[in-house]
Amino acid sequence: MINWKNLDTLAAFGKLAALKNSVNLPEAMSGENGAARVAKYSVPMAAGLSYNFAAKTVDDDVLEALGELAAEAQLTEKFAALYNGEVINTGEKRLVLHQLTRGQLGDNVVVEGTDKRAFYVGEQKKAADFAEKVHAGEITNAAGEKFTTVVQIGIGGSDLGPRAMYLALENWARQNGTLKLDARFISNVDPDDAASVLKTIDVAHSLFVLVSKSGTTLETLTNESFVKDALKNLGLDPSKHMVAVTSETSPLAKSSDYLAAFFMDDFIGGRYSSTSCVGGVVLSLAFGPEVFARFLDGAHQADMTAKESNLMKNPAMLDALIGVYERNVLGYPSTAVLPYSQALSRFPAHLQQLDMESNGKHVNRFGEPLDYPTGPVIFGEPGTNGQHSFYQLLHQGTDIVPLQFVGFRQNQAGMDVDIQGSTSQQKLCANVAAQIMAFACGKQDANPNKTFEGGRPSSIIIGEQLTPETLGALLAHFENKVMFQGFCWNLNSFDQEGVQLGKVLAKRVLAHETDGALKAYSDLLAI
Amino acid sequence: MINWKNLDTLAAFGKLAALKNSVNLPEAMSGENGAARVAKYSVPMAAGLSYNFAAKTVDDDVLEALGELAAEAQLTEKFAALYNGEVINTGEKRLVLHQLTRGQLGDNVVVEGTDKRAFYVGEQKKAADFAEKVHAGEITNAAGEKFTTVVQIGIGGSDLGPRAMYLALENWARQNGTLKLDARFISNVDPDDAASVLKTIDVAHSLFVLVSKSGTTLETLTNESFVKDALKNLGLDPSKHMVAVTSETSPLAKSSDYLAAFFMDDFIGGRYSSTSCVGGVVLSLAFGPEVFARFLDGAHQADMTAKESNLMKNPAMLDALIGVYERNVLGYPSTAVLPYSQALSRFPAHLQQLDMESNGKHVNRFGEPLDYPTGPVIFGEPGTNGQHSFYQLLHQGTDIVPLQFVGFRQNQAGMDVDIQGSTSQQKLCANVAAQIMAFACGKQDANPNKTFEGGRPSSIIIGEQLTPETLGALLAHFENKVMFQGFCWNLNSFDQEGVQLGKVLAKRVLAHETDGALKAYSDLLAI
Repeated sequence: MINWKNLDTLAAFGKLAALKNSVNLPEAMSGENGAARVAKYSVPMAAGLSYNFAAKTVDDDVLEALGELAAEAQLTEKFAALYNGEVINTGEKRLVLHQLTRGQLGDNVVVEGTDKRAFYVGEQKKAADFAEKVHAGEITNAAGEKFTTVVQIGIGGSDLGPRAMYLALENWARQNGTLKLDARFISNVDPDDAASVLKTIDVAHSLFVLVSKSGTTLETLTNESFVKDALKNLGLDPSKHMVAVTSETSPLAKSSDYLAAFFMDDFIGGRYSSTSCVGGVVLSLAFGPEVFARFLDGAHQADMTAKESNLMKNPAMLDALIGVYERNVLGYPSTAVLPYSQALSRFPAHLQQLDMESNGKHVNRFGEPLDYPTGPVIFGEPGTNGQHSFYQLLHQGTDIVPLQFVGFRQNQAGMDVDIQGSTSQQKLCANVAAQIMAFACGKQDANPNKTFEGGRPSSIIIGEQLTPETLGALLAHFENKVMFQGFCWNLNSFDQEGVQLGKVLAKRVLAHETDGALKAYSDLLAI
Repeated sequence: MINWKNLDTLAAFGKLAALKNSVNLPEAMSGENGAARVAKYSVPMAAGLSYNFAAKTVDDDVLEALGELAAEAQLTEKFAALYNGEVINTGEKRLVLHQLTRGQLGDNVVVEGTDKRAFYVGEQKKAADFAEKVHAGEITNAAGEKFTTVVQIGIGGSDLGPRAMYLALENWARQNGTLKLDARFISNVDPDDAASVLKTIDVAHSLFVLVSKSGTTLETLTNESFVKDALKNLGLDPSKHMVAVTSETSPLAKSSDYLAAFFMDDFIGGRYSSTSCVGGVVLSLAFGPEVFARFLDGAHQADMTAKESNLMKNPAMLDALIGVYERNVLGYPSTAVLPYSQALSRFPAHLQQLDMESNGKHVNRFGEPLDYPTGPVIFGEPGTNGQHSFYQLLHQGTDIVPLQFVGFRQNQAGMDVDIQGSTSQQKLCANVAAQIMAFACGKQDANPNKTFEGGRPSSIIIGEQLTPETLGALLAHFENKVMFQGFCWNLNSFDQEGVQLGKVLAKRVLAHETDGALKAYSDLLAI
């Protein structure tokens, strides 16, 4: 029997709150005690990654309280309910099934006679077959020439996740000889976005993937028209250059405007859709279906570890609970995501959507106002770039910002240079190790301007190399972390009612049905 | 006589604090009262921009208190001291002269016999002449062929600002026939960053701009070696493909490794260096010196408005003070920057450095610990993309995040499409107008999950089009805003001691001179 309760009604939360400031991080991380923590506070993740939380302000007492909180909040049971097909997205009365795109976790989930796992696998197979025909030159442009570029047209979850995943694997694929098509992305309704992409690609050899679940996303349909005009102006037939990714019930599903259509459904939210056809079509076209399958495998492995009820074997749950401790006990309002990998340059932007859109809510799943803070602000840039930018505030600002590092022992492109006795990759890794310790322990100095207080908590996910498998595991880790946090906060993490009002008002502006300040702003902007 | 005092010791701050929550934003912005606010609470900016703060939680009483605070904190006098050449960066005992790169604001500033304005103008002239010779084919690669691409190698301020400015004007320049060279950027010590750029450019026709003030930045020198190796492997002479931007005293200044060297000095901080040769060389090469000159002119116009002591004629000062009110009276810990312009996609990343590195400090300019919060976390993405991502939290999250919108009436590329009765540009503008009102006024609903509390403050900077002049004005506006906030908080906004400790520890890791947890992390990362 699952009980959906607010965080502040749980006995274990009271126990956790009593442990506030029980860990002195600079002290805990100093000397051999610190080395012992690094060895001890590490949990294996899927695909050979590991989650090291030695530099978080936790100790065995805090971990025990977090374990009790996990049990009392029934995190494992709630996850099982989700993957076994209960209506977890209660606001929209929908199942939440993105994990089924990458594997079978529990029961078969059958909706109106359709086995959903089989449905998702079937669509992936369609995408794989299509991609292979494109690569083989069996599907070509009207002149019979091979496509060289794939352009995704989508916004939000149809853009951020797939774009971040493409950038994460582009160099790896080039190095491994599996970069089949270059990929580009058009998202913003700003016409300069599409114009910029179209002016820098070979349109006649480009295949466009139109992604909209509903088939009614204003930005995406507008950009589709923009692209179709450009194709027609070049004497090309748009229907020979476009495929659709949408739901079976959308207006795009059976249209002759597209070479093919690939389907998703209402049980996969946009920000959770990178492993569905939303990511699958563009990534299979860019890298080949085998690479996409390996990415799915990494994600599925991470889902399997998320089923563990033992906190110390479940890094997503542990990460989630430490975040709740930092947000609700220590009172930190934001979190920085800092991958030491240029390939992950847009991964923080994806996590920003995933986390802030899922858990940026002020009522619980029953619509009752909450008395405690929920999702934090998420931001980040790759290291070492961030070190030369906003790290000043992270080290010496007046607020404490918890940090999530990611690091890999090997680069992707296989090119490196030895300067002053070390490679670039070694310098990159040395920097992330150094930062963790600088944040945790700080440094006293006679000059107060050069003093670092320390006590700034971080964790690091470490892997051998960013590959399709490790990327999939990384993606699913954060999806599951966000889900567990939503359970703790008693939220529905799978709707986004907060995006609706702006849409309604924008339509009113375009229909010139405004008054007061809205009309005044519209006039200033010459609409 | 200038007095450097802490914010909480100023009488006007006490008066301001007493006005906490005196404005009910949903009420103030409703009906014709709201329209009147939009008309009234607008201040002209340089280059035809305007700063509209109707949707901030201010009224005439708050503005009066802000005006008193500006006077008591001597903001105008402190700015004058800065541009007249006093040692404002007291920690490093340096002048702060980035405004002189774009115009004369006050006295001639002469240091060791050198008129600094003349020096900066001279270096710009050198850069302009060099760029024109490259464009004319007088300076070519060894084969006598024209360069087609310019690649900036730099990190932090030598990367973020120039990169954001290039992206901001790339489409404009293409449309206006002034895109002379494509520009690319290498910044991260991650070897995959340089590898990725080198694999996607025509190296034989590329000119590299090495930017390091000290000539010792580890990332930049490492990437220089990486690039030199690549050039040599192609049988090319690196010294025919590289110029340096550095200080006259740096090891790079007189080296025969470069086609030319352009100089900056210690009085221009990295994050304030886009209008110096750090931005000037790459932007003059990419767009032509005339475009760069127009950019400088816009920045200078903004500097001139920043000299105004009347708050209602000084948008940078007003913006700064409203930010202080939000941070120190209302207690908001972060600020989102949301440009409704795809061309400004990396402008938030630049502002993130500018703001967080300048004012993320916990001691005042005398090294005394502060009892009040200083610089907030800055993050942002272009609209409308952000609407489909993290806006959920901004609308319905438990924390309030002040918002800085930017919008333009016209696009840059001159391509647009009419769908459902409106252009893309109109849709873009309609969305920003709608968002301001949705955030300010919210909406009640019988379903609490669809209720928007409103009361979420924003301002908007509005312009006709993003051009070199408006971009320059926008850049300088924020530089001056950050400076005024630093004055309010009694900080030295021009040093960055917080970035040092990490560098020291990273060197120790690379020298294998570590123990304890630092050695343990180094081992995990196989350094």
